[in-house]
Amino acid sequence: MDDDVPLILTLDDSGSSASAPLDELDREELPNENGGSYDVVSDASSPAARECCAQQSSARHNWEMNYQEAAIYLQEGENNDKFFTHPKNAKALAAYLFAHNHLFYLMELSTALLLLLLSLCEAPAVPMLRLGIFVHATLELFALIVVVFELSMKMRWLGFQTFIRHKRTMVKTCVLLVQFIEAIVVLVRQTSHVRITRALRCIFLVDCRYCGAVRRNLRQIFQSLPPFIDILLLLLFFMVIFAILGFYLFSPNHSDPYFNTLENSLVNLFVLLTTSNFPDVMMPSYARNPWSCVFFIVYLSIELYFIMNLLLAVVFDTFNDIEKRKFKSLLLHKRTAIQHAYRLLVTKQRPSGISFKHFEGLLRFYKPRMCARERYLTFKALNQSNTPLVSLKDFYNFYEVVGLKWKAKRNREHWFDDLPRTAFLIFKGINILVKSRVFQYTMYTVVAVNGIWILVETFMLQGGNFFSRNVPWSYIVFLTIYGVELLLKTTGLGPVEYLSSGWNLFDFSVTLFAFLGLMALAFNMEPFYFIVVLRPLQLLRLFKLKKRYRNVLDTMFELFPRMASLGLTLLIFYYCFAIVGMEFFAGVVYPNCCNTSTVADSYRWVNHTVGNKTVVEEGYYYLNNFDNILNSFVTLFELTVVNDWYIIMEGVTSQTTHWSRLYFMIFYIVTMVVMTIIVAFILDAFVFRMNYTRKNQDSEEDNGIVLEKEISKEEVIGIIELYKRTSAATETAQLQKIVLQMDKYGQMSTVFLGRRSRTKSDLSMKMYEEEIQEWYEEHSRKEESQTPVQEPASAASSSLKPLSLRQRSQTVI
Amino acid sequence: MDDDVPLILTLDDSGSSASAPLDELDREELPNENGGSYDVVSDASSPAARECCAQQSSARHNWEMNYQEAAIYLQEGENNDKFFTHPKNAKALAAYLFAHNHLFYLMELSTALLLLLLSLCEAPAVPMLRLGIFVHATLELFALIVVVFELSMKMRWLGFQTFIRHKRTMVKTCVLLVQFIEAIVVLVRQTSHVRITRALRCIFLVDCRYCGAVRRNLRQIFQSLPPFIDILLLLLFFMVIFAILGFYLFSPNHSDPYFNTLENSLVNLFVLLTTSNFPDVMMPSYARNPWSCVFFIVYLSIELYFIMNLLLAVVFDTFNDIEKRKFKSLLLHKRTAIQHAYRLLVTKQRPSGISFKHFEGLLRFYKPRMCARERYLTFKALNQSNTPLVSLKDFYNFYEVVGLKWKAKRNREHWFDDLPRTAFLIFKGINILVKSRVFQYTMYTVVAVNGIWILVETFMLQGGNFFSRNVPWSYIVFLTIYGVELLLKTTGLGPVEYLSSGWNLFDFSVTLFAFLGLMALAFNMEPFYFIVVLRPLQLLRLFKLKKRYRNVLDTMFELFPRMASLGLTLLIFYYCFAIVGMEFFAGVVYPNCCNTSTVADSYRWVNHTVGNKTVVEEGYYYLNNFDNILNSFVTLFELTVVNDWYIIMEGVTSQTTHWSRLYFMIFYIVTMVVMTIIVAFILDAFVFRMNYTRKNQDSEEDNGIVLEKEISKEEVIGIIELYKRTSAATETAQLQKIVLQMDKYGQMSTVFLGRRSRTKSDLSMKMYEEEIQEWYEEHSRKEESQTPVQEPASAASSSLKPLSLRQRSQTVI
Repeated sequence: MDDDVPLILTLDDSGSSASAPLDELDREELPNENGGSYDVVSDASSPAARECCAQQSSARHNWEMNYQEAAIYLQEGENNDKFFTHPKNAKALAAYLFAHNHLFYLMELSTALLLLLLSLCEAPAVPMLRLGIFVHATLELFALIVVVFELSMKMRWLGFQTFIRHKRTMVKTCVLLVQFIEAIVVLVRQTSHVRITRALRCIFLVDCRYCGAVRRNLRQIFQSLPPFIDILLLLLFFMVIFAILGFYLFSPNHSDPYFNTLENSLVNLFVLLTTSNFPDVMMPSYARNPWSCVFFIVYLSIELYFIMNLLLAVVFDTFNDIEKRKFKSLLLHKRTAIQHAYRLLVTKQRPSGISFKHFEGLLRFYKPRMCARERYLTFKALNQSNTPLVSLKDFYNFYEVVGLKWKAKRNREHWFDDLPRTAFLIFKGINILVKSRVFQYTMYTVVAVNGIWILVETFMLQGGNFFSRNVPWSYIVFLTIYGVELLLKTTGLGPVEYLSSGWNLFDFSVTLFAFLGLMALAFNMEPFYFIVVLRPLQLLRLFKLKKRYRNVLDTMFELFPRMASLGLTLLIFYYCFAIVGMEFFAGVVYPNCCNTSTVADSYRWVNHTVGNKTVVEEGYYYLNNFDNILNSFVTLFELTVVNDWYIIMEGVTSQTTHWSRLYFMIFYIVTMVVMTIIVAFILDAFVFRMNYTRKNQDSEEDNGIVLEKEISKEEVIGIIELYKRTSAATETAQLQKIVLQMDKYGQMSTVFLGRRSRTKSDLSMKMYEEEIQEWYEEHSRKEESQTPVQEPASAASSSLKPLSLRQRSQTVI
Repeated sequence: MDDDVPLILTLDDSGSSASAPLDELDREELPNENGGSYDVVSDASSPAARECCAQQSSARHNWEMNYQEAAIYLQEGENNDKFFTHPKNAKALAAYLFAHNHLFYLMELSTALLLLLLSLCEAPAVPMLRLGIFVHATLELFALIVVVFELSMKMRWLGFQTFIRHKRTMVKTCVLLVQFIEAIVVLVRQTSHVRITRALRCIFLVDCRYCGAVRRNLRQIFQSLPPFIDILLLLLFFMVIFAILGFYLFSPNHSDPYFNTLENSLVNLFVLLTTSNFPDVMMPSYARNPWSCVFFIVYLSIELYFIMNLLLAVVFDTFNDIEKRKFKSLLLHKRTAIQHAYRLLVTKQRPSGISFKHFEGLLRFYKPRMCARERYLTFKALNQSNTPLVSLKDFYNFYEVVGLKWKAKRNREHWFDDLPRTAFLIFKGINILVKSRVFQYTMYTVVAVNGIWILVETFMLQGGNFFSRNVPWSYIVFLTIYGVELLLKTTGLGPVEYLSSGWNLFDFSVTLFAFLGLMALAFNMEPFYFIVVLRPLQLLRLFKLKKRYRNVLDTMFELFPRMASLGLTLLIFYYCFAIVGMEFFAGVVYPNCCNTSTVADSYRWVNHTVGNKTVVEEGYYYLNNFDNILNSFVTLFELTVVNDWYIIMEGVTSQTTHWSRLYFMIFYIVTMVVMTIIVAFILDAFVFRMNYTRKNQDSEEDNGIVLEKEISKEEVIGIIELYKRTSAATETAQLQKIVLQMDKYGQMSTVFLGRRSRTKSDLSMKMYEEEIQEWYEEHSRKEESQTPVQEPASAASSSLKPLSLRQRSQTVI
């Protein structure tokens, strides 16, 4: 109890008696630094003048301003926004606040999506979605006007100077201008012209607040480019050498169409790099002279098995390096943000720390949804020393602590502890049952049997109508077992504990799907039959059995958000290429189109009659076209998978010019870059996690970050007093509830648990533990060298003050 | 000079006057431990009896024995041979010595190769190399008898007990037995039967001393298997789920031949994993319903882009871990070997170190080719303290030092320093010229121009006979320039310095080839025309310009030996599969063979007449057969490249049973394992090197390990005295030459430089610097705990003595 006394004293101290007027309190505590630029507009008096004749309302207003600016700094630190975009005056602040909330973000996102989706309805449109030119051009103009509005808000917030210096925004503005002009041209001419610039619409999506991960990916891709291009040149160099060699060796053979000119030789070796024309490209020369295979084996060994792997190695190495540098710059950026915020929250009187009152003020702006109890717990969690103030050193942990979700530590172990004796015993029995190994292994056996059953059943069904009206009895039996298991587990563990495990959630949803499938079968709802075939997913549960699988699957889930953002990045590249493809190649391939090319067979569509039967010979490749954006996406996916991509290329080339090949080759190289990055990312994430587990073998099963804090009744009452003075009714009521609960159980204090899941940043913190200290020292040394004049009185805070532009631009994002 | 006095004193000391009889010297210095088991046979007297009445010859013999055993220990340490294979008595020693020299190794290698090459001539033989059954069976029997002889030598050396416990040898013996029986059966029946066991012949190659790297690779592959198989199961699991799903979804479509049964569905999804039937496998369903592409996209995203990458990540991680553990065990194994050797070399009188005399004795056995000067320099390089003895701590560096090549430090900078004034000035001028940047960049420009020239020239040549009788003038011009450059560089730098750089060597050989090509053109020697097309290789020189390329190419050269061994490992797998393939599939595919299969087109060979012209339609795939071992290798390479491999599979399957698919699928998985290991290896090596360069950025350009040692005239004379007493005439003469040279230049001492290239082990030593100390401590702690009884007199050496079997088996190889 003694530990908590100082704080309560402070609370009493700050308003020496409970009835002391608020103005006295505020007059006593002047901010160490006022809200900078904001009150220049609202209050023109000079700081000196203000200080000597401080008005109550002005002081409070100053404090509010400081809270808000500190909260903005912390947000900038969290979002990794450069500090030079920090709002500089009250007008900018208003615009900043307008442009930084989810409503605005959603508007940004939906306009961007609308613009992107327009290509479904424009000129080579998806048949079902075709819109008149007038309709889609108007829609486009509308969306563009919304973007103009968004940009003008941004300009208000950033100021013209900063706006111009911000590259991404400038690019966006230019694209906007071009799009605007083109949309008007379309509207006036009432016909679509070649609009490759539509490919640039992606920038609107990339610029969205919610697409931060995509921006990071793009940055990473661009940063990995220089080494990538170097190795690519080596690759192309060998390709050229082998092309010359191949031309000399094989062009005398007139039955070899692949090497008859240098251009063909080059193109075929490029395709060979993707192996999709192997072994066909070798065959004519191989048929003539078996030793010619040496040429191809050497080429593939060098290019495919050596240099391509080297490419991956170089990208992986760069990736590794970038990840670390990124983590470092983010960490230091956050640190600087915290320093800025701290500077705004300490008082003149007590420059050594932040009191709860001001901390609470900050959190009101930083996390408006947080309740009073959580604010106080966060404060306590930050406060490592026993003083009532949070020092700068403690405050550095702000980001780690503020994300914690606080819950009172439960005294009862199970959800049924409060039930009557008989019920308790029953539930306890179920609890023990479902936690027993026997039960678990029985379930695994059932799942395995079910899996084999499904396999055998499917194997027996050779064609015919599978979805007969009668539901198979095995389906019902297994579903019943799963249902019983689900019921037992829910009752035995309690619904909350049951669903808190990802695996249980998975079980639950699969069982639910199976049940829905049964319903579909029973009520004969054909479109939902596909649910039935999801049954084998139950088998995934078997992978829980082995530690490595748990590890791998956990890593999979951890990787998922990042993978999704990488996928989105790939989709953005797809979009650009799809637009370009549609503009140039829409409608060029059709059945029986490419009769002059070497791949004519793949495009053939013949319908002839043999005897009585109509035989349809389908080459099908005419389906891989650029006729609308959906078809283009499928075609691009096929090009990504690389197999037989040259058939698509040759088909299009034979109908257009041979320059079309450039499009396909560039696409191949771009996807190669993105795919290599994806591989490097998976490798890096996986190896990182493995190293981490190896380093912390003792704490194998971790449930994220957990922090425990005890709060005594006196403390709660102290906070209530504080809130009462600021007349915050809801907060007071909330806190009073805690006091009541404590009274009910006769406790003098309650223990709260703060919990959050472990992020990559936490892992990195632990991995680079030693280096981080060095970085901090280096960082503060750099800062000190930039502030040659030091005020002896408050060295700690003053050393942060002059945030020169040079330093600002150094904080890499 | 003072530093070297103690040693000379020792030399004097050991034979207190030069005329002292040898027996006194030897009687004085008794080995701390005699040669153990060896002299039990040669000298039956008990150690106690021997010690009190030591005979001169016996003592010397003991010492020789000790030298030899120490040298064997050191060899075992270097070669990573387990100590339990250490020869235990004189008979074993003789066998050991017989089985450990290059002649024996070469015999081993050539028998193994002979056995492997036999498959060129056996039953489905390469037409040109076909031999009668009697001939090749006799050859085989002969080779097998040689192997029996080798094995019997090994048994003599190891003893029956150890022989049986040595797994690899036992497997080899069993295979030998089977081969023997089968060879005799063939000889008796005069016809070949199905001999799949021929695939096991590889073991003879793997067991060769020279194939240590292959054994290491195989071990690494087997160690990486468990995690690999785990992920493979995950992969197969998803495949089965999707196969069931695909069967349900697409089998109602009767025009879709890919999913009509569950087996087809599985096979096609397996092929789809390798992407070689994409997009064809999708097309029938895609033509019917465009949304069916979702199935394929999801399947490929999960399997190909996620789990396959996970596979690489897991293998890479395991690989990383294994590499480190391997390095650790190797390091500790070497350390133990050094300890054993040390124990045999110290004397009873002076247990704190090894004197030069004994060190020299060791080197005589360990490196018989080393000259006296080098032996002494090695001793000096080891000796870190100023005492005349090498302590155990110094001796631990044995392996690092013994590989150094020693050369007297040259006093002159250039080779022409001794020439007369005029010549000196001319050469000096040339030297400055070739070292100047202007010269270098001029040459780069010439190379670039040459490259463009070749490209343009080739582009202009559209068909026709390229190799006209008149040599193109550009060829002569450029070759002249390169010739002049070569001449200038050789004269300016001196031939030795010129050829010591890898890049210059490359230039030299390319220019030489170009010259040979010119000769071929001039004298119209058709078969050598291919040399002409090697000209573009000159362009590789341009890659010297950039640091990253130098780095990459250097890494390439460093990786080369390891890559070659990995390639050999792959070839061994190829061999096994080729034999199995030949036994089952020889002769099953031929033109127009597979008319019942879906891939009949690829095997078609039609020769029909259209108008006047004979049109040959060739499917060519019948060339990808298993008709002889060379064809099999090419076919297997095509299967490795994976594209269109299912055409080969389906062709063979349609002619045999559908169980043949197993062969192709297993081959795919095996190559996947090996390829993944290769990728992991390249990644690991590259990332390791990059990390190393990042850690040692200051010492960027390193020329390997260099050590400098000064030897004074007195020291040399001292050693000469020593050798005179042991009457080694050649050594004495050699050393006297050094003294003469010193006299000639009037020097009192000469500085020698020891040099060797940096190995991976050196890099690892530096990377794991901190951890290595921990390993050593842990290792010695473990050893101490195994030797509870410590003799207080010589604790250092006694702690090494009891090499229990348990410890032996722990030293992982």
